[in-house]
Amino acid sequence: MALKVLVLGADGYCGWAAALYLSARGFDVVASDNYVRRDTWDRYQLRGYTSHIAQGNEPLYPVRPAHERLVTWQRVSGRQVHFIRAELESYEQVQALLEETGPDAVVHFAEQRSAPFSNLSPQHALETLKNNTFSTYNLLEAISRIDPEIHLVKLGTMGEYGYTPHEDFIEEGSIDFPKRPASPYHMTKCMDSIALEMMRRIYRLRVTDLHQGVVYGISTEETAMHPDLHNRFDYDGIWGTVINRFSAQALVGEPLTIYGAGGQSRGIISLQDAVRCIELAILHPPAPGDMVVRNQITEIRSVQEIALHVAAACERLGVQVETRYCYNPRLENENHGLKVHFGGFVKIGLEPHSLEETLAKSDLPFLMQFRNAIRPDLLSNQTIADWRKRHA
Amino acid sequence: MALKVLVLGADGYCGWAAALYLSARGFDVVASDNYVRRDTWDRYQLRGYTSHIAQGNEPLYPVRPAHERLVTWQRVSGRQVHFIRAELESYEQVQALLEETGPDAVVHFAEQRSAPFSNLSPQHALETLKNNTFSTYNLLEAISRIDPEIHLVKLGTMGEYGYTPHEDFIEEGSIDFPKRPASPYHMTKCMDSIALEMMRRIYRLRVTDLHQGVVYGISTEETAMHPDLHNRFDYDGIWGTVINRFSAQALVGEPLTIYGAGGQSRGIISLQDAVRCIELAILHPPAPGDMVVRNQITEIRSVQEIALHVAAACERLGVQVETRYCYNPRLENENHGLKVHFGGFVKIGLEPHSLEETLAKSDLPFLMQFRNAIRPDLLSNQTIADWRKRHA
Repeated sequence: MALKVLVLGADGYCGWAAALYLSARGFDVVASDNYVRRDTWDRYQLRGYTSHIAQGNEPLYPVRPAHERLVTWQRVSGRQVHFIRAELESYEQVQALLEETGPDAVVHFAEQRSAPFSNLSPQHALETLKNNTFSTYNLLEAISRIDPEIHLVKLGTMGEYGYTPHEDFIEEGSIDFPKRPASPYHMTKCMDSIALEMMRRIYRLRVTDLHQGVVYGISTEETAMHPDLHNRFDYDGIWGTVINRFSAQALVGEPLTIYGAGGQSRGIISLQDAVRCIELAILHPPAPGDMVVRNQITEIRSVQEIALHVAAACERLGVQVETRYCYNPRLENENHGLKVHFGGFVKIGLEPHSLEETLAKSDLPFLMQFRNAIRPDLLSNQTIADWRKRHA
Repeated sequence: MALKVLVLGADGYCGWAAALYLSARGFDVVASDNYVRRDTWDRYQLRGYTSHIAQGNEPLYPVRPAHERLVTWQRVSGRQVHFIRAELESYEQVQALLEETGPDAVVHFAEQRSAPFSNLSPQHALETLKNNTFSTYNLLEAISRIDPEIHLVKLGTMGEYGYTPHEDFIEEGSIDFPKRPASPYHMTKCMDSIALEMMRRIYRLRVTDLHQGVVYGISTEETAMHPDLHNRFDYDGIWGTVINRFSAQALVGEPLTIYGAGGQSRGIISLQDAVRCIELAILHPPAPGDMVVRNQITEIRSVQEIALHVAAACERLGVQVETRYCYNPRLENENHGLKVHFGGFVKIGLEPHSLEETLAKSDLPFLMQFRNAIRPDLLSNQTIADWRKRHA
């Protein structure tokens, strides 16, 4: 019988792609989301709090709510993914969700995932703190009470170890390797890890903690099957990570803006590899009481190297690209390598794709279609989340 | 000029004693509390949530709200301690409190401090998670924005390292020594430590993290000055720690109930030593960007040893005492030593008092006055927070 997988945060960038990928591979998928991002966060706003920040994000092309897109998915693929709207900050709703679905595995993408968002104001930090730690804690509580056999696959981040990494190699699989978060968002992921470690130890839960790197890439085989299945593409300073922002800048003829010296390195992974990692994690559940930590990256690249790859892919499409060094709103070491062990997923079956290949074959040709819709004003709003400028 | 110290959680057991102690020693003290414990938590209830647990706690003798007791303090000591009611879960209130008072140091006792309380239900765990992590994070945010020179003295717990400790000695001063919390309460303290470490590093704050052991003892020189200044004494299964519970059992002629084998060890400290530690911590602020971790205990005792000392002190007062081994509601190793380095406070001036001395000279003679008010029904409610019995 097919494994039943509950994908939380299924309206988001990774969650959507993972839900379809798993469904296509024969898993019995149930998708859930609270739509808080499209309802409030996309405008940098908060639940129950009026933000002073008027500016908002807008996706490059319309992306319908997950439950509507899943109707198309069923038509196109013949596979049904049931959708349940649920608020994971509520213990009662988490319990009901697990009781209703009875999953073998839960994949938890349903957290506020932007470091700049968490730095917009103290209230944005608190919203991130509540959303992320409450959802993870509630899942652990509910699993421990309902069925400790349920495997929790939780998305953490390589950023738990810090932008300016340790001298030593960052180990793979270590629960106790020192954490050095550098934003409220990263802090919440470290806090989640504390909850995961405790609850698996006390209640003998099966927990996988994925330290995911920066995910790039727009399409997977599944999201490319129909325009209504497209994944969201963020390129603004709050939600868009560096590869997306560079791609958008290149296509509107603006210089790629490198924050600071550009020597800062990031662990990265393509979306297609990331969803395969989720599948591999599900297929390799830890023993009861174990917590498996996996570093979910396939390459380490400096910001400068990323700019070079984006420029090269654009030039193949006939688009000339400049780069410019500019003010860095983050507090970080701008010249550092990143020493990370990350062979674990390859050992259990991952066949990684490269940044170069993904940009040239998939991402930039896809984005060219929407070139005229890119809003240059969204490219320049990164400094509203400035790590350095603080005032009471 | 006197150092200005803001004591948060000043209506509580440690906060009240610390506020008076610091005031008596010439510090310019401002006291604050939100009174949530007396308003809701004492009945095991929650803000905005109706608990199914009807039973409630009751202090052994009336303890008026801190702002009323401070009127007596001024009359008795001639020293003024200003009181401000504030809700630290609100960033705006934390900012206003710091701006209004302009302290040199902030002592943060204002957290939900009971592991059994945090285990009463998932909602009690979430209340603890919110109250503790929000208050600490808000203080760090506000200090970083208003005045990074303010020294934050934050109460953590030895329990961050676990009830069943590591093979190795627990270091003193290490930020990265592995944490193994064993209740939602302890988990939140570990999460706080993550926030402290990050914010001091990014914004160059001065942070002291005190890993306090189990505090025992009722009176300090200051609280003993007038009946209206008495500190609260909890002896129920939720708020009363083991030494208080044993003392109350002994005085009503019930056997001292040792959970499990009784070989489990705890780091302990008397209240009079604990408030002196707070003074010493304030007088030794870390450099900007530094986080000093101090293990705030003076002795290590097994639960069996504690029972023996309580029995011995009672027998001197003519009270015969039995002990009984019973069901342990906690999940823990019941026979372990505790290897901890904790000489730091002695090096900077602490002269510790022993458990034996404090019980015999101060606590049990004091409690004898209220012997007839002890409610045996409160002594037997510990199993309502059972680590083992879980159901959805």
